[in-house]
Amino acid sequence: MTSFGESHGPALGCIVDGCPPGLELCEGDLQKDLDRRRPGSSRHVSQRRETDQVRILSGVFQGRTTGTPIGLLIENVDQRPRDYGKIKNLYRPSHADYSYAQKYGLRDYRGGGRASARETAMRVAAGAIARKCLAERHGVVVRGYLSQLGPIRIGKVDYDEIENNTLFCPDAGKVAEMEALVDALRREGDSIGACIDVAASGVPAGLGEPVFDRLDADLAKALMSINAVKGVEIGAGFASITQRGSEHRDEMTPQGFLGNNSGGILGGISTGQDIVARVALKPTSSIRIPGRTISTSGEAAEVVTTGRHDPCVGIRATPIAEAMLAIVLLDHLLRDCGQCGEVRRNPLPGDSRATLDTLARQQA
Amino acid sequence: MTSFGESHGPALGCIVDGCPPGLELCEGDLQKDLDRRRPGSSRHVSQRRETDQVRILSGVFQGRTTGTPIGLLIENVDQRPRDYGKIKNLYRPSHADYSYAQKYGLRDYRGGGRASARETAMRVAAGAIARKCLAERHGVVVRGYLSQLGPIRIGKVDYDEIENNTLFCPDAGKVAEMEALVDALRREGDSIGACIDVAASGVPAGLGEPVFDRLDADLAKALMSINAVKGVEIGAGFASITQRGSEHRDEMTPQGFLGNNSGGILGGISTGQDIVARVALKPTSSIRIPGRTISTSGEAAEVVTTGRHDPCVGIRATPIAEAMLAIVLLDHLLRDCGQCGEVRRNPLPGDSRATLDTLARQQA
Amino acid sequence: MTSFGESHGPALGCIVDGCPPGLELCEGDLQKDLDRRRPGSSRHVSQRRETDQVRILSGVFQGRTTGTPIGLLIENVDQRPRDYGKIKNLYRPSHADYSYAQKYGLRDYRGGGRASARETAMRVAAGAIARKCLAERHGVVVRGYLSQLGPIRIGKVDYDEIENNTLFCPDAGKVAEMEALVDALRREGDSIGACIDVAASGVPAGLGEPVFDRLDADLAKALMSINAVKGVEIGAGFASITQRGSEHRDEMTPQGFLGNNSGGILGGISTGQDIVARVALKPTSSIRIPGRTISTSGEAAEVVTTGRHDPCVGIRATPIAEAMLAIVLLDHLLRDCGQCGEVRRNPLPGDSRATLDTLARQQA
Amino acid sequence: MTSFGESHGPALGCIVDGCPPGLELCEGDLQKDLDRRRPGSSRHVSQRRETDQVRILSGVFQGRTTGTPIGLLIENVDQRPRDYGKIKNLYRPSHADYSYAQKYGLRDYRGGGRASARETAMRVAAGAIARKCLAERHGVVVRGYLSQLGPIRIGKVDYDEIENNTLFCPDAGKVAEMEALVDALRREGDSIGACIDVAASGVPAGLGEPVFDRLDADLAKALMSINAVKGVEIGAGFASITQRGSEHRDEMTPQGFLGNNSGGILGGISTGQDIVARVALKPTSSIRIPGRTISTSGEAAEVVTTGRHDPCVGIRATPIAEAMLAIVLLDHLLRDCGQCGEVRRNPLPGDSRATLDTLARQQA
Repeated sequence: MTSFGESHGPALGCIVDGCPPGLELCEGDLQKDLDRRRPGSSRHVSQRRETDQVRILSGVFQGRTTGTPIGLLIENVDQRPRDYGKIKNLYRPSHADYSYAQKYGLRDYRGGGRASARETAMRVAAGAIARKCLAERHGVVVRGYLSQLGPIRIGKVDYDEIENNTLFCPDAGKVAEMEALVDALRREGDSIGACIDVAASGVPAGLGEPVFDRLDADLAKALMSINAVKGVEIGAGFASITQRGSEHRDEMTPQGFLGNNSGGILGGISTGQDIVARVALKPTSSIRIPGRTISTSGEAAEVVTTGRHDPCVGIRATPIAEAMLAIVLLDHLLRDCGQCGEVRRNPLPGDSRATLDTLARQQA
Repeated sequence: MTSFGESHGPALGCIVDGCPPGLELCEGDLQKDLDRRRPGSSRHVSQRRETDQVRILSGVFQGRTTGTPIGLLIENVDQRPRDYGKIKNLYRPSHADYSYAQKYGLRDYRGGGRASARETAMRVAAGAIARKCLAERHGVVVRGYLSQLGPIRIGKVDYDEIENNTLFCPDAGKVAEMEALVDALRREGDSIGACIDVAASGVPAGLGEPVFDRLDADLAKALMSINAVKGVEIGAGFASITQRGSEHRDEMTPQGFLGNNSGGILGGISTGQDIVARVALKPTSSIRIPGRTISTSGEAAEVVTTGRHDPCVGIRATPIAEAMLAIVLLDHLLRDCGQCGEVRRNPLPGDSRATLDTLARQQA
Repeated sequence: MTSFGESHGPALGCIVDGCPPGLELCEGDLQKDLDRRRPGSSRHVSQRRETDQVRILSGVFQGRTTGTPIGLLIENVDQRPRDYGKIKNLYRPSHADYSYAQKYGLRDYRGGGRASARETAMRVAAGAIARKCLAERHGVVVRGYLSQLGPIRIGKVDYDEIENNTLFCPDAGKVAEMEALVDALRREGDSIGACIDVAASGVPAGLGEPVFDRLDADLAKALMSINAVKGVEIGAGFASITQRGSEHRDEMTPQGFLGNNSGGILGGISTGQDIVARVALKPTSSIRIPGRTISTSGEAAEVVTTGRHDPCVGIRATPIAEAMLAIVLLDHLLRDCGQCGEVRRNPLPGDSRATLDTLARQQA
Repeated sequence: MTSFGESHGPALGCIVDGCPPGLELCEGDLQKDLDRRRPGSSRHVSQRRETDQVRILSGVFQGRTTGTPIGLLIENVDQRPRDYGKIKNLYRPSHADYSYAQKYGLRDYRGGGRASARETAMRVAAGAIARKCLAERHGVVVRGYLSQLGPIRIGKVDYDEIENNTLFCPDAGKVAEMEALVDALRREGDSIGACIDVAASGVPAGLGEPVFDRLDADLAKALMSINAVKGVEIGAGFASITQRGSEHRDEMTPQGFLGNNSGGILGGISTGQDIVARVALKPTSSIRIPGRTISTSGEAAEVVTTGRHDPCVGIRATPIAEAMLAIVLLDHLLRDCGQCGEVRRNPLPGDSRATLDTLARQQA
């Protein structure tokens, strides 16, 4: 998958190459996930109005993928460049405009240009293709949820609750508290970080390469490449630091693994257990509380970012993280078919309960 | 960099391609870092005796790199395959031998084959070349240290202390406590996790790509690809979750940044501040405490791993993490010269104090 | 550069990633080359009417490239799918529809789908960006011409004549004869092959890698990837077979090389001389003369292809071959800046006369 | 496959990554092909004495490939650096030492360093693995022969004759004439070009990608990357220029194709027919006939290359071209299994007679 497009240009697009042929695919298949991440879909996310209507421009004939590159396009309908006049000559702390200006020697001050969260729409669209192929052909299901919003941690994971609220929160009992926090932050003009969990069940054992393109390494790259992500964990993650070997190891029985501290990956290769990952997202950098900065000519200044911004970028990161997980898994699944398609495997039963038990211990 | 080799084969090797020509290079430049990671260099790491003598087989002529591929080779001198007889038909929980067996349909039971920590010797050797080029040509210095061993966190970072102990611990006041823990674990036949910090100073602003090959994403991939790593953070990392935007953002003044929660990377591109990353390593899976497992024919069994194993694989991960950081930085530095070599930059002064202040806050 | 799009879908597009920032660029810069390859631009090429209006959707801000991905789009305005009804269930000999059907298990019978020459429009658009960057920043000029049409060889190369006729023929004295041949073929419903020469002058010495990504190898791949190309030569090419070493070698003097049998590349690396390559294109497979074939269900049949087709696909291959040469050269130029940007070079004067002398000998 | 090593360094090596697991493999499997290309194997090729004993250092366990990287090493036993004293400060016309010196700013004058034909030993070793996998698992057989030596063309192709002479000549009736030419050239201190044909039979239909990684394009790159190759043809190649569409097209019947002008590839994708390619090799640049050159300090000079050199580098290019064809085919076969492994194919019978008929027409 390769993409192009800035938040304030005429359109965003991407090319998905290498998709297996014969997969049923229509624009509605992509639109569903796009609508989940769309700004304006709730009062908690950016008030910008984008309909995010995706068009499939190639690679599908008579309702099925042909195997050739799939071109996708989303026109930007709401660009309002006037929003950015005040900050045209000011770098925004914690924002990519400073690093872009240093790299390229010029500056697209409109909404961060390529660094805008808007770019992630194409990942979600591409991810929807991967997700459909994984589900229909391989029985792999990818799901994510908000596991922490600022200081508020979820207490349990109920997958049926996730789509019942606009926060992707799997714990109905925490939704009101989280919504109150977001509303307070919006009033104060401040923002907060968040944590997203993603998991895939039904993943075959054997995906990933031993050293350079390990499944966990590619997953870390894919997840860290999402805007605002500052940390990635697989399985027990940072909790492994204080674990003993006798506690961390997932013992094995003929009925399956007895835990999932590994997050479904050992030595860079999937075990057949659920793949479990977690990402930390920093708070939105564009806030209304004044901060010290410099101008593009290097002078000290004060900056205030007004306009349409989420108090928590992490909220709508759930479908993005799901998309990245799906893309990485399908890539590795196809690679593995190439090299090891003739290997007959006989894995242990994948056991989602082991995952949930381990997760519960970590949330506690 | 590409590598080959198993722990119990005749040799390990790698190819480093794309190194700038004209760099002074001899085997001693590589040996220094290899000796730092070597098993047997202290009583805390694996008692296996490998001299890890690296040979440069190509790409250097009259003491300077030619620009063509550098071939490196380390012969394995201590193979002792007899150690593995007892576990020949048992999968070891938390070890890659199960996932390898599923992937490839066969099993090299000797020390994990390609999944052995021994493979990382070649990364350290290749990293030493990158590190030398970074230091001599670009003034970039890469350093790492052990920041946590099980429950014991360092209280301060004194770079001068790191090489004074065999744990890569930058806090002299914690060394005795850590050594006592390792000794106790060895007696008990158990193991523990660890946390390693790595940082690079003097990094130019502008390294990294906006979306797919972001500097933070490539760094996450490189670090997560190290054996036993289960988590990666950049800058504030998981601490970002509970930060507010007004707290997380690194304000800017003409004298430099006022913090380094970003870890020196914004929007996937370096800012000129110190690059700061942190990795969590799980405890060694090979321990003497009996555990439930299955045999290769699928029957329930009990496994005990004897032989030469570190109670904490994290201890010698410091030079490996440094190597991976150096390789990623040099790759991006050369890429950036390609695309943006004509851009004149005028970055803020990089300020290591901002890094240390932020780190101190995080350790607290 | 990556592209998508079929001849009969809604649009074609591509993404150009890695373009240096700060280059002046507008749609008119691309349109010029697109108009040169456009079907319908003369009576000799396909009578299909496509305006081929390209849009730049990203990567350009205030008239200059930003360094981020450039998205390009051309809408298909003339699709007429009815043309293909008769051959819907017949494979066309020498056409990709058979091999595509085998690969993907399904068949887009409309104009060859992805295998259509229409796909090359995006290469020309992308190539126009590379060409502009090469010319403005590096003084490299890329040019091509038709050197043979069926049995008719050019007798001389006058670059000023190329754009004076619709055949890209650099020898004004051969144009009438070539046009007569094309007209006769159109009447007969047959087609013919062609040969295109491309050259680049002003190329710095030192571009290319020693073994795997040699400049000549990458150029061969790029040129062979053009539809209908069946052969690629660099410099003396197949004429080298009968040359003696004492004849083939390009002797050197302080004033420059005395010949250019090497085509400007030695050991995979540019010498500073003109880069010279030549491609052979097969005759169009879609002809009106009946031929034996099989149906998609495997039965013997006779096929006749009517509709809009060029008697010689080679004619409009000139701008495509120029585009591929430009893309390969700019890629290698940027790579070389990355690895060897600090090397000071002192090459011999590049001497275009040596090229022309060698070419003249080969045409004779 | 990636390789390292210079002709006069201590060793050459390569890494073959992605080989399917479970393939029986020993050093003897590689040695056979290495012995075919070895200098000193006949009086017609370089008198340098290298035993070219290859060692497998990893990736094989208990006689079978494990699926992890295979490391190969050949020690250089005959280095004689004294041979190169006379030409230490002189560029050799038509030799890569000039372009290398420009690229890298320094010069390994010993036998061309990385540009030496010696580098191709590793390709032959890696190719032997690909060839074995192709033959045993997919029924694909790769073969090559010398089709022209200077002005002497073969008159027929008898595969059984190829290994009966040291020239890889498939026409027993031409061997004496060719040997006489080589002997004469050696006496005169001159050299000559050659043409090599390679073919693969049993190739499944459907290998290759539609645009960028077309099978013909990747094959052109692989073959053009061989030292001294200046031209590559697929199928009818340059003969296509003068063919009419009605002549070039390979008509189809339920019994198979009626010709193979396509060389087994249409639209970049294999048809199931024999893959047929041809390469032109320039004459050896190192000859004893004095030539004009410049010194490394830029002054006019005369150069004579003495020492161990073949009058025709093309002779031993046959196993190298076979290796490159095998590597490209296996790569595409594995890729195709990844993307299109679930497609059921029903191709026409591949018909080698069609190939031989077409070849015969081209030789005539």
